[in-house]
Parts: sequence; structure tokens; C-alpha cells
Amino acid sequence: MIDYQARFARLTRVAERSLIRELLKVSRQRDVISFAGGFPDPSTFPVAEIAEVTQEVLRTNAALALQYGPTEGDPALRDQLVAWMAKDGLRVGREQVLVTTSSQQALDLVGKVFLDPGDVVVVELPSYLGGLQAFRAYGADLVGVPQDEEGIDADRLAETLRRLRGAGRRIKLLYAVPDFQNPSGVTWSRSRRERLLALAREVDALVVEDNPYREMRFAGAAPPPIAALDDEGRTLYLSTFSKTLAPGLRIGWIAGPEAVVAQCVTVKQAMDLCSPSLTQAIAAGLLRRGDLLRRLPATVALYRRKRDVMLDALAREMPQGVSWTRPEGGLFLWVRLPDELDAGALLPAAVETGVMYVPGQAFFADGSGRNTLRLNFSYPSEDEIRTGIARLGALVRQATPAVHTIHSRGTTVSD
Amino acid sequence: MIDYQARFARLTRVAERSLIRELLKVSRQRDVISFAGGFPDPSTFPVAEIAEVTQEVLRTNAALALQYGPTEGDPALRDQLVAWMAKDGLRVGREQVLVTTSSQQALDLVGKVFLDPGDVVVVELPSYLGGLQAFRAYGADLVGVPQDEEGIDADRLAETLRRLRGAGRRIKLLYAVPDFQNPSGVTWSRSRRERLLALAREVDALVVEDNPYREMRFAGAAPPPIAALDDEGRTLYLSTFSKTLAPGLRIGWIAGPEAVVAQCVTVKQAMDLCSPSLTQAIAAGLLRRGDLLRRLPATVALYRRKRDVMLDALAREMPQGVSWTRPEGGLFLWVRLPDELDAGALLPAAVETGVMYVPGQAFFADGSGRNTLRLNFSYPSEDEIRTGIARLGALVRQATPAVHTIHSRGTTVSD
Repeated sequence: MIDYQARFARLTRVAERSLIRELLKVSRQRDVISFAGGFPDPSTFPVAEIAEVTQEVLRTNAALALQYGPTEGDPALRDQLVAWMAKDGLRVGREQVLVTTSSQQALDLVGKVFLDPGDVVVVELPSYLGGLQAFRAYGADLVGVPQDEEGIDADRLAETLRRLRGAGRRIKLLYAVPDFQNPSGVTWSRSRRERLLALAREVDALVVEDNPYREMRFAGAAPPPIAALDDEGRTLYLSTFSKTLAPGLRIGWIAGPEAVVAQCVTVKQAMDLCSPSLTQAIAAGLLRRGDLLRRLPATVALYRRKRDVMLDALAREMPQGVSWTRPEGGLFLWVRLPDELDAGALLPAAVETGVMYVPGQAFFADGSGRNTLRLNFSYPSEDEIRTGIARLGALVRQATPAVHTIHSRGTTVSD
Repeated sequence: MIDYQARFARLTRVAERSLIRELLKVSRQRDVISFAGGFPDPSTFPVAEIAEVTQEVLRTNAALALQYGPTEGDPALRDQLVAWMAKDGLRVGREQVLVTTSSQQALDLVGKVFLDPGDVVVVELPSYLGGLQAFRAYGADLVGVPQDEEGIDADRLAETLRRLRGAGRRIKLLYAVPDFQNPSGVTWSRSRRERLLALAREVDALVVEDNPYREMRFAGAAPPPIAALDDEGRTLYLSTFSKTLAPGLRIGWIAGPEAVVAQCVTVKQAMDLCSPSLTQAIAAGLLRRGDLLRRLPATVALYRRKRDVMLDALAREMPQGVSWTRPEGGLFLWVRLPDELDAGALLPAAVETGVMYVPGQAFFADGSGRNTLRLNFSYPSEDEIRTGIARLGALVRQATPAVHTIHSRGTTVSD
């Protein structure tokens, strides 16, 4: 018998399989209502438009659309991306844009390009699990800073950065998901974005702005992307069409300073030579025709309605002592159970009762957040949301009779 | 001004942009006949079949084909891959197969899963550049072993392995491209494959068999893949549909021991979550319909003809002192110039005169091979092959009047 485990690289030997993806597999095998994934509602996929564009691409451009393409990405798509970002005040040229095979690849690429083992990446508490995993795989030391309803706690961030600098640590990247964050649903205020940039300048770190949900705004005015407030080239902007078009095309991108994009291109060559030409040609065609922008209002309206259904159901079903966010957009709600509860420990019972979520702890770089969980409202139907939240509410009530009773009397529970 | 360069990770800071891809850009801007790429002839792309299958997929299966998919890959495609490999005597189950976004991603993944800085990877001299780049990005120490017309020199390999072991080095991987190697066109004999496996066992290393060209055999009997000769689970088999279908779909895969594939899946999650569902569904559909196998003979016949045209042209145009391989398949011919010549130094003049190739030195992990170059015959037309080789021949004759004259007198040149 060959011992494979002993041969694995140190940095990835300990990589845990994504909890989300593993549990999804289990839940698919049963009648479980899943709030666990981050899947878009397939009814939002522009199927007819994709079919039309694909036929056109294959009729007029197959020799290129089926061939190897430039590592940087399809020039037509890069031009469309420049225009797409301009609607948010991002002014970049084509040479500042690199197409990636999903926004997750963009995170992997950023990790590979920038991170030496031991480099510090500052992340929110909680933060996007895929980002944490990508950076950990290059040996980064992830340092967490708490979030409040306005985004990262800027005073705590300042304090943390000073402490790290005082300890002689190299702070390479500040990782931010400022719009409808996955997992918390929190959106950063403009002033938090500005303070992040000011602090990044102070410690001379770069900012990685991961912004996959920006277009999914249900209400309220949108603060500018961090990258649009940055006038010195300190921010890398990552985004994707996984929510606005379809994840199955895996179209993501990085926009940033030309020197960084050039290095990303070099490194991506050894990762996959280039992203699929066909899916890039399809995305470029859809953007040219305006299909994405035209369909966006209906998608946003659908997700807003689903969010409202979930908010109503939570208000109806959850016992006192449970709180949740009211996101202005995106795909996720964030639930805080009474401190005594462990959302991870509850999960098997939840799956048993027919509902699935992601325990929040994995999103916390410091291992905290045991009593939190993430709920996705974009994929399940409205009926499933009502039924699933009822199941979850019953489970939480059952798990916390004492807490609930005591909380409803207005006292604090010790331990 | 922000100094980006200073922030780049040590391992990838020095990564050179792929010479091939950079030069391709230059050559596209002029009337240059390129033998540099590794592009399939676009006339081999099954365009009508892809159009049909795509319509069918979008009509019957859009909700899955445009959604996130399992990291392991589309189950239907994995089953098709099991059947595809079985025709070459490879017996693997679905759980032993992982779909990747190109075979280059498979190489990157193997590097990430196995390599710690300083680990030894033994490679052929010359070897596939993309493999060298992928492994270097994880800090591997690439140790080269010369090739002859039967594959890797097994005695030299044995000697090298013993020396490395004696020096206490950890030999993680033996990297082999045994069929119509890129760049040399050499195919390993069966006995070399067997000796590689025996030596791998002796030093307890794993074998990475990179086999993208196997189906492109023009003549002669095919020795079994190394993986088919391996009865102890020591070999990872990497392949792709980039040559048999179309590179623009970026469908590659890894087959190997289940424990290794499972680790690759875990690590791939942080790299891109999953490969594009749409392109996987298209490939699965084409395989199910038998389109790939049906079209293969015509593709092979086309490339055989082009190879013959290139061989004829070389015989006609090249001065004495120049030699080249006569590959039994694949996409590449390998040319050895007189020792005094430097194929890299000649390249700007070649591009000037309207022909492009890849200097061989980059394929040699030890920096040797200055007088070698790689020619691709799959992409250019037969006329372009004749014209391009005439241009190249004139250039080589011009660059080596003394050598040529002296060689034609049968003497050796000193210096």
C-alpha cells in the first residue's frame, strides 16, 4: 500500500474539504430544503439568449471560439468588462483587466501572485470562506477584524494594523467583501470604505475588493466600490458573472494596476494557459446585446421577494434571543443564535428534520462564531423558504428551551 | 508610486512570461508563418456537432448546465471519461477521475497537491514547458534526465535517482510525456515505460503521466500508457480533449488513486470551485454521441499529411548538420541545429523573415538545448509549411555558412 497522504504538500495537506460542498452532497440525496449553497435561481438564467448567442458564435467565429485564446482573456470580453465596470465608476483600460475562470480563480491567483508563507492577510470576521481557503493554501496568516452593520470595524482595524506593524509583520493584503457580504449580508458604508483605503495607505498594504453581488441591490443607494475611491492604484477589484448571468460559465475577472494584472497573466499561464474561449465568447455576446442589464431588474426583484419571504418567516418562527441581518441585496442572510448554541452541532439534526444551512464558524478566521449560521434565499422557492424556516425555527426552539424562556423573561443566561 | 514588484510572492516573482505565448502575439501582428504554437487545425473542430449538442443541453438541461457543478466534475462526463480511457487499457472507476479546466490545470493541481519547496521532480530533457512552469511555481527542484529516440534514458535515470537518494533528497514525482512528446515528438518504448515504473517503485516516487496526444498516432503500434502498466497505484494519468475536440472548451482530467483524486478535489475547491458546467455538458454529449471517435481518423490523417509535408520540406531546405525527429504522431517536430547555433538568438531574424518557432532551450530544465527548436505542424496549412520551412532553411543556411561548408566537407568545427 502506498501512503499518499504522507506525500501531500504541507500547505494543502490539511485543507479541509469545503463543508458547504460536502454537505450539499448529503442534502441532495434526501428531501432536504437547502439554504446552504450560494446558487442563483436557475429561472434567472438567460437560456434562450445563451442559445442564440452560442449559435451565432459558432456560425461566425468558431475557429477562434473553440481555439486557445490569450491568457488575458478574449479582447472583446475585456472591452465589455471595461464598460460593465464603468457603470459603477470604475475607470480601467483593457490592459488592466484579466478574465479568470470564476472569481474563485481570481482569489487563487491573487494568493499565488502575492502571498509568501507567513504574510498577513487581514480579513473580516466573518469573511468569505472561498477567500480564506484560497489565501490559506499559500500559507498566509489570516488576521480577523470584527464587522458591524456598517462593515469592518475601522477602529479595530486601525488597532490591529498598528499591532501587526509593531510586531514587524508584513501586511500584504486587506481582503474586503463590501457589498452584501457573503456570509453576513452586510454592506460597508462609504466612510468605512474610505477609512479602509486610508489605513491601507498607512501600512502600505494592497486592498483586495471581492465584489460578486454588487448588482444585486434591492433598495437604498449604493456606495461606490472601494476601487472607485482609490486614486493611487492600491485596490484589486474582483468580480464575476456567476450571479448576473450563470455560474456554469465560470466567468470572473480581476481589474487592477497594469503591473499587477501583467504578473497575474504570467502566473495564470502556468495555471491553465487561458480560460475557455467558448464561454468567454458567449459572455461577450450577451454583454454586447445588453441581455445582462436588461434581465437584471427581474432577477433583483425575484431575490428581493425571496429575501422578504425569509425575513417574514424568521420573524414568525424564531424564538427570542435569535437575531439576523436584513441585507439590502445579495444572496444571504446571517443568523445569530443564542450564545449557548452551536450551529455546527445542530446541523445533523437540521438535516434530519429536512433543512440545511452553513454553520458560521468556518467563515471566522479566528474560529469564533459558533452560534452563527448563513442562510441562502436565492435558490429555494418561496414555499421552500417558508417550510424550511419553520423547520429551522422548530429545531432552534427545541434546542433552546431554557434560553428562550429565560430570554423572554429578560434575564441573561450565564454559561 | 506603489512598488508592486516588491510585493510579489517569492516563488512566482521570477516567473517568466511564457516565451511561446509572448512571441505568438508578435507574430499575429505580421505576416509570419507560425510553427510556434501547439494549436490544432480549426478545421478539425466539430462545430456542427457542438452546435447541436449545445442546443440539446440548453433545451433539456439548462438548469444544471448553467449552474455550479460538483468540484469533481459532471458525473456524466466522468463516466464518459472512464469509457474513453478504457479503450487504452486504463481501468479506473468514476471516483478515480477528476475533471479539470484543461490539462494545464491538472499540472498546476498536481504541483499544489504534492510539492513542497525543494522537492525533486525528475523531468525529461527536454520536457513540456507548461509542466516545468507548473512545478516550478511550487518551488520544486527540477532534475533533468536526457532522452533518446526510445524515451527517457533509463540508465541515466537510474543513476540520477540513486545519486539524488544518496544525497538524501525527497523525490516526489517522475514527470513523463510518453506519447509524441511535446516538444520532441519522441514516443517511449514499452520497455522504457516498464523501467520507469520499476525505478519509481525503487525510490518510492509517484509517476505523473501527461498524455495529451495519445490519440494522434499516425503509424505503428501504440505501447500501453504507463498508467495501464502500473499495478500498484503509483501513476497519475493526465489528459485533455484539446487536441481531439477543441482547446477552447478547456476540458482536461486527472485519473489516479482515489485518495489522490480526493485530495485534488479538495484543493481544486479553493482554486475555482468547479470547472464550467456548460463545456463539460457539451463534451459529455459529444462523447455519448460518439462524435470524437468518429472524427478522429480524419484528424489523424490530416496531421499525418502535414507532418509528411514538413518532413519533405525539411529534407529539401535544411543544410547538412541539421537533424530532426520523425514523430509517429502528435503535433510537433524537433530540430537540432549545429551546436554552434543558438535558436533563441536566431528567432528575431526568423520573425523578420516571416517564420516563427519555439527555441528549445526553455524545454530543458538544465538550461541546455540552445541549438534546438520546436516546430508545430498541426496548425499551419500545407502551403504555409512549405513556405515557412523554406524561409527557415534559408535563415539557417545563412547563419551557418562556415559550419555548413565545413560540415559538407565532413570535418568537425572547433568552437
